[in-house]
Amino acid sequence: MNRLALRDQLTQFLLEDIGFGDASSALIDAKIMSTAVVTAKADGVFCGLDVVLELAAMQRLVVESCVEDGTVIRQGDVLFILHGKARTLLETERVLLNLVQHMSGIATMTRRCVEALNDPSIAVTDTRKTTPGLRMIEKHAVRAGGGKNHRLRLDDAVMIKDNHITALGGVTSAVAIARANNGHTTPIEIEVETLEQLHEAIAAAPDIIMLDNRTPDELRAWVALIPPTITTEASGGITVDTIAAYRGTGVDVLSIGQLTHSVTALDCSLNLKGGVKHATIRNDANRIYESVD
Amino acid sequence: MNRLALRDQLTQFLLEDIGFGDASSALIDAKIMSTAVVTAKADGVFCGLDVVLELAAMQRLVVESCVEDGTVIRQGDVLFILHGKARTLLETERVLLNLVQHMSGIATMTRRCVEALNDPSIAVTDTRKTTPGLRMIEKHAVRAGGGKNHRLRLDDAVMIKDNHITALGGVTSAVAIARANNGHTTPIEIEVETLEQLHEAIAAAPDIIMLDNRTPDELRAWVALIPPTITTEASGGITVDTIAAYRGTGVDVLSIGQLTHSVTALDCSLNLKGGVKHATIRNDANRIYESVD
Amino acid sequence: MNRLALRDQLTQFLLEDIGFGDASSALIDAKIMSTAVVTAKADGVFCGLDVVLELAAMQRLVVESCVEDGTVIRQGDVLFILHGKARTLLETERVLLNLVQHMSGIATMTRRCVEALNDPSIAVTDTRKTTPGLRMIEKHAVRAGGGKNHRLRLDDAVMIKDNHITALGGVTSAVAIARANNGHTTPIEIEVETLEQLHEAIAAAPDIIMLDNRTPDELRAWVALIPPTITTEASGGITVDTIAAYRGTGVDVLSIGQLTHSVTALDCSLNLKGGVKHATIRNDANRIYESVD
Amino acid sequence: MNRLALRDQLTQFLLEDIGFGDASSALIDAKIMSTAVVTAKADGVFCGLDVVLELAAMQRLVVESCVEDGTVIRQGDVLFILHGKARTLLETERVLLNLVQHMSGIATMTRRCVEALNDPSIAVTDTRKTTPGLRMIEKHAVRAGGGKNHRLRLDDAVMIKDNHITALGGVTSAVAIARANNGHTTPIEIEVETLEQLHEAIAAAPDIIMLDNRTPDELRAWVALIPPTITTEASGGITVDTIAAYRGTGVDVLSIGQLTHSVTALDCSLNLKGGVKHATIRNDANRIYESVD
Amino acid sequence: MNRLALRDQLTQFLLEDIGFGDASSALIDAKIMSTAVVTAKADGVFCGLDVVLELAAMQRLVVESCVEDGTVIRQGDVLFILHGKARTLLETERVLLNLVQHMSGIATMTRRCVEALNDPSIAVTDTRKTTPGLRMIEKHAVRAGGGKNHRLRLDDAVMIKDNHITALGGVTSAVAIARANNGHTTPIEIEVETLEQLHEAIAAAPDIIMLDNRTPDELRAWVALIPPTITTEASGGITVDTIAAYRGTGVDVLSIGQLTHSVTALDCSLNLKGGVKHATIRNDANRIYESVD
Amino acid sequence: MNRLALRDQLTQFLLEDIGFGDASSALIDAKIMSTAVVTAKADGVFCGLDVVLELAAMQRLVVESCVEDGTVIRQGDVLFILHGKARTLLETERVLLNLVQHMSGIATMTRRCVEALNDPSIAVTDTRKTTPGLRMIEKHAVRAGGGKNHRLRLDDAVMIKDNHITALGGVTSAVAIARANNGHTTPIEIEVETLEQLHEAIAAAPDIIMLDNRTPDELRAWVALIPPTITTEASGGITVDTIAAYRGTGVDVLSIGQLTHSVTALDCSLNLKGGVKHATIRNDANRIYESVD
Repeated sequence: MNRLALRDQLTQFLLEDIGFGDASSALIDAKIMSTAVVTAKADGVFCGLDVVLELAAMQRLVVESCVEDGTVIRQGDVLFILHGKARTLLETERVLLNLVQHMSGIATMTRRCVEALNDPSIAVTDTRKTTPGLRMIEKHAVRAGGGKNHRLRLDDAVMIKDNHITALGGVTSAVAIARANNGHTTPIEIEVETLEQLHEAIAAAPDIIMLDNRTPDELRAWVALIPPTITTEASGGITVDTIAAYRGTGVDVLSIGQLTHSVTALDCSLNLKGGVKHATIRNDANRIYESVD
Repeated sequence: MNRLALRDQLTQFLLEDIGFGDASSALIDAKIMSTAVVTAKADGVFCGLDVVLELAAMQRLVVESCVEDGTVIRQGDVLFILHGKARTLLETERVLLNLVQHMSGIATMTRRCVEALNDPSIAVTDTRKTTPGLRMIEKHAVRAGGGKNHRLRLDDAVMIKDNHITALGGVTSAVAIARANNGHTTPIEIEVETLEQLHEAIAAAPDIIMLDNRTPDELRAWVALIPPTITTEASGGITVDTIAAYRGTGVDVLSIGQLTHSVTALDCSLNLKGGVKHATIRNDANRIYESVD
Repeated sequence: MNRLALRDQLTQFLLEDIGFGDASSALIDAKIMSTAVVTAKADGVFCGLDVVLELAAMQRLVVESCVEDGTVIRQGDVLFILHGKARTLLETERVLLNLVQHMSGIATMTRRCVEALNDPSIAVTDTRKTTPGLRMIEKHAVRAGGGKNHRLRLDDAVMIKDNHITALGGVTSAVAIARANNGHTTPIEIEVETLEQLHEAIAAAPDIIMLDNRTPDELRAWVALIPPTITTEASGGITVDTIAAYRGTGVDVLSIGQLTHSVTALDCSLNLKGGVKHATIRNDANRIYESVD
Repeated sequence: MNRLALRDQLTQFLLEDIGFGDASSALIDAKIMSTAVVTAKADGVFCGLDVVLELAAMQRLVVESCVEDGTVIRQGDVLFILHGKARTLLETERVLLNLVQHMSGIATMTRRCVEALNDPSIAVTDTRKTTPGLRMIEKHAVRAGGGKNHRLRLDDAVMIKDNHITALGGVTSAVAIARANNGHTTPIEIEVETLEQLHEAIAAAPDIIMLDNRTPDELRAWVALIPPTITTEASGGITVDTIAAYRGTGVDVLSIGQLTHSVTALDCSLNLKGGVKHATIRNDANRIYESVD
Repeated sequence: MNRLALRDQLTQFLLEDIGFGDASSALIDAKIMSTAVVTAKADGVFCGLDVVLELAAMQRLVVESCVEDGTVIRQGDVLFILHGKARTLLETERVLLNLVQHMSGIATMTRRCVEALNDPSIAVTDTRKTTPGLRMIEKHAVRAGGGKNHRLRLDDAVMIKDNHITALGGVTSAVAIARANNGHTTPIEIEVETLEQLHEAIAAAPDIIMLDNRTPDELRAWVALIPPTITTEASGGITVDTIAAYRGTGVDVLSIGQLTHSVTALDCSLNLKGGVKHATIRNDANRIYESVD
Repeated sequence: MNRLALRDQLTQFLLEDIGFGDASSALIDAKIMSTAVVTAKADGVFCGLDVVLELAAMQRLVVESCVEDGTVIRQGDVLFILHGKARTLLETERVLLNLVQHMSGIATMTRRCVEALNDPSIAVTDTRKTTPGLRMIEKHAVRAGGGKNHRLRLDDAVMIKDNHITALGGVTSAVAIARANNGHTTPIEIEVETLEQLHEAIAAAPDIIMLDNRTPDELRAWVALIPPTITTEASGGITVDTIAAYRGTGVDVLSIGQLTHSVTALDCSLNLKGGVKHATIRNDANRIYESVD
């Protein structure tokens, strides 16, 4: 992930939650230091290390240790420990947990799909069906779960679907127009729905052919027709419950909207361990080492 | 919703998805006008009218009609129809659907909870377990589903939890400190976990008492102890599957994280109806009526 | 205050004042270190500690000590001392003083009101008549002066005024509609102007009744009619010169626009103490420890 | 004023006040159209036309007429009339009034200074003691009141004060260094506190000499020494109450911090005139002409 | 181009140039309407249609007609005509011309390269050596000149250079690691400097092989070794003066930093045609049709 | 330069180039530390110290030493050395070089003009023909090359050109109107094209007279007519190739668009020196000292 972009987003998220200030944690003496332990409350795959480290840096908290992204975790596992002012720990808790739970939920679902598929020759891939504003973060979580990323946005690959094919005068001309209007680092992908389109697409030689809404058997048959120089992708209605049927179909990529459009948060809890009064005697001079609370 | 805030967010979401430009829709002649029909692919409750209208205004599309927020929809229902340039319809599709599906998913789950509870004396309420960056939108969707909103952010209500109670010297002093440090429009809520705390809380007279992780029977008993001038709220592990058991407990509010932390998108599809070549003969002069494509 | 929000604002304020760079301080050798002493030039109440600390952190200055927010100060008192590059001290001076003088002006006026009222049972409260862009800062200053904050913005409390009452079909239905459309953490306040409205309001049981433009005697009489479960607020034409008359009226809250809509800056001055040439011999290598000037 | 900059600021101000939405005006039927009349509640000078027009455009309100900036107004004068949705009028009221009252307060004070001085050969000028975030707006209001603007920010003129003189080795070298490091469109101003400095400054030939904290008599004497090719400015402790004494001193410019650092808002009121139900029968199709509420 | 991204950038550019307002055009009566004719002062290729249309929309100017991007223009050609307030035309002039001249300069240089190469089998392509902040705009101008775009940013393609090869343990493992860590829409490109590396790269089967700093003869020989399924690119020291020598080398792509890192603006001029006083008699009521000036 | 403004811009530039993350450098082990040496590949004048220091601070790189802005450099000179993570060095390379090359290109051209002119009594000055978004940076580079800055933006000086003169009723009234509407720190400059205009301008006594498109001989003659209290400026078609002819003309300022509108980048290269594996044994605990990669 791009750290500067992440920091920008985290700033927005904290501003959204905190507003003019946390009216509850402001009641607590700014001198009280504490430790927060974040624990998994369910099994899954952790994701969120970068978020933990960056939020801690922004909020002047110290991270004692942290599970790596992609680690399989069990209910009860300690994920990470934070030290700092009690009021800052409480102020930061919700944004931190919301993100870690969301990212871990995605990583967990991705890994479940990869394991259910159990075919290392096929990549499990996300889509653009991500939560608006969270694409970078969600695509990172897919990778942490063992998946791969499809195109990042509308500018980095051409995807020719049925509406484009109609507007561009058919498969052959659509691929030709796409090629003529794009540089060599922009892959051209075309979606086909009939065998006739498939044959036309093979002749047009795009970089990727997308086979939409095929049964596993159809998929196997159609993929066999496509030369190895063209990458094959299947999509449409593939979920963690149906993905095993795609094992051995020979397709290169399965793209799965479910990874990001319907996320079940992985439950975690944050608990403060004691609330020890800061030992240092306060005076005006050392006030300078503290920042705005 | 605040229209200016919504427009700011939609701008960010479109920038995230479009980047330097949609490489696929740019292949289509800018003169082709088309119509997009958005249809529900599942039963549920629609939410997203404001997003549809505002995105259309931003992208120079016309909305022919649109289902109201909160409307019960059935698979196959037309939700709204958009007219405009084919390339703009395709460029806008993903952000539009991602949001409408997410908001409708929340509204649908909220209504399912309200109907399962089937007790109009109890409010079904959200939490701060929202997707970072989407709180305003998600809280709006909860209302569209018949739910109510808990506090919007950390600055508009005091919520005293166990960690605060410890740091503030007990329930009585916690409520007193909270009251002394906040104005009359900031409600004071305290979470209690034992009967002893409950009695102390009742005496301290906060605006709201939160009863955490009580069984329905415990809840009924505890609520009976609380005078009507104090609002009662229950939370912890309440889901659409367990909510019916809280019917008749007498509590005022049930707050449910599931409404927003684990959203199942309500599936919708967007289909272009034909792609009619723009009839007007183009000339340099009328180019001025068009904008950047 | 929310430190991240404050930093965002201070950045904007510095950019507004500095533009492409301070043409005057840029003339001074970047090696000259100096000390700036900020002194009160009038009596009052100090406010601005967070601004001083955060501006110093942003501009790489060190704060030697600083008066706490809410401290009563006398003309001639040293408020805080800054150390750093002479050019940075001069570049930062105006934004720093403008804010400290403005905040201290508000805190001073608030305390003058509290002292003139001299009735601890009545809260002196601000309004939404704040300087656009400075609401968080100004509401903080009100608290520093011993006042309390009314609602923060339009989303965290309902205030039903005459226009709303008319549009909503009277006091009774207005309160009912407000209650039905808002969650339990959103207080409902209604403004009444006649005894008839007052009786209707009492029956409707809002959280707060606002008595607008009452004389102290009227106020005393009307407040006596309102049950203690409803908070009472008076507003309209209350100033530091008239507030004493409201002592003993039994009202809970006086809200005073003057606190923030007409602020008299508390005069302060910043003086550099000497301008000592930096002792270290400069060379290219140690240039790396310095930042952009 | 720069319209794009103004719109950016107004957007921020509305977001600050509205948050997730106006909970009060949202209770009113979106179909109710109304008219708001803004009336002066005190005598003074109006300023805020641009703010009224731009806010109205942003909020989809229509301005029926509006007093020009700089117009002398009397208590009871109608300043402008707005038409639009009742809920939008109420949502916009506070930001609109806060700005108009603040700007008119500045314009009024400026004109009072100009009239008290009553010497058209002397310009009444503001300083950089403006409210952070509002400099463009406040400097515009000074012009509306008949004043002139001093430098806009730290980059467009050099102002050499005592600290700079010390650091730069005296008046002569300070002016020389300033001249050598700046282009021909950057005026060089130097502040002098003694006659010796004045003579040195005259020889150094800056564009402007600032005479700080002189009595009117001293000022008259010192100004007489300065050749007409150098602009003269006086500052320090000049207020609306003392400014008349500077009449006839021969100085070119009086700069007055009071114009912007201690603003008394000019009181205005906004009243809705009736709340007429929108006549058009509503249907889904014409919903498209409305935007997000 | 992405219109929303373009509008954001144009807003920043106007704010940069205008500041608090154009002190010169503000002197002109706001009622004077005028027409500005923009004319080429040199031969070349025009680019900037989107900028003209969008700036005009933002500044409330009307574009009468405009040359299309990519049109060959001759000195003296009218490029476009703008109508609007004289003061707005003058306020907008500099940002408009700076952009049009810059974009047309890039389009012109690109077309000169394409024509000098005169080999339609080879794509003339840009690099990431673009002006910071202007990448979208500059890459658009390259396309307008008949060139193609290399990767848009660091996230949409992998480019393995010498430093990466060393760090990743050689060509073979570098390609393998890149493939394993990226999805199927991210092309893998590797740069080779020796024949040994070339053979290793061919075996590793990246999507693109970059041949750095080869003479045309070397290039021809090396390209002949590479199978057609791998795209070939040459870079390093290719300019409009040397590009003809690459004709017929068989390479697929030439990438040329000069297109964007050293841009010669295509000179244009803007002239006002008369300054006709607005005919309509002004009154307060019609002031509402105008916006902030 | 204003460091906060610079940091804002650098953030935008890095976001533009990096997007969701550098797909290439992410392949390299985060533990590999390295050293990057930046070397000049052409003769010229260096500019970019502030950019190097600030980018390094933002990206957690250490600058070992750096040439000062304005230093004359020769091909092969080491300009600066950076230490840090290999992946961060590679991620930062392009933005860093693009800026340093652009700024050094401007500084180099400016110095070439100054040297070709070889008349210290005449200032070589830039214009507003800067690259949109880069004005602060480019004007800094002009100063580094020995030039001076003309006005920074449209708000800090009045420039009356032919269109303004027509609209304002002639030279005399134009200057009078400009003077009447601006404060004493805003210089008034007028452009004259005929001797008649020149005489009128001299009588009107602006601060600066701009003589547009004069030959050196005409310039000499016209300047001789202008009293020394008015600054003289010549502009129009002056380039590094023609500037020597203006030596001795007596004009005060030559303003040259070429300095910034057509920049030739000064070529530099960045080379990694080895890629040493980080010696420290990694463990979870010390992961806290690292940030997001």
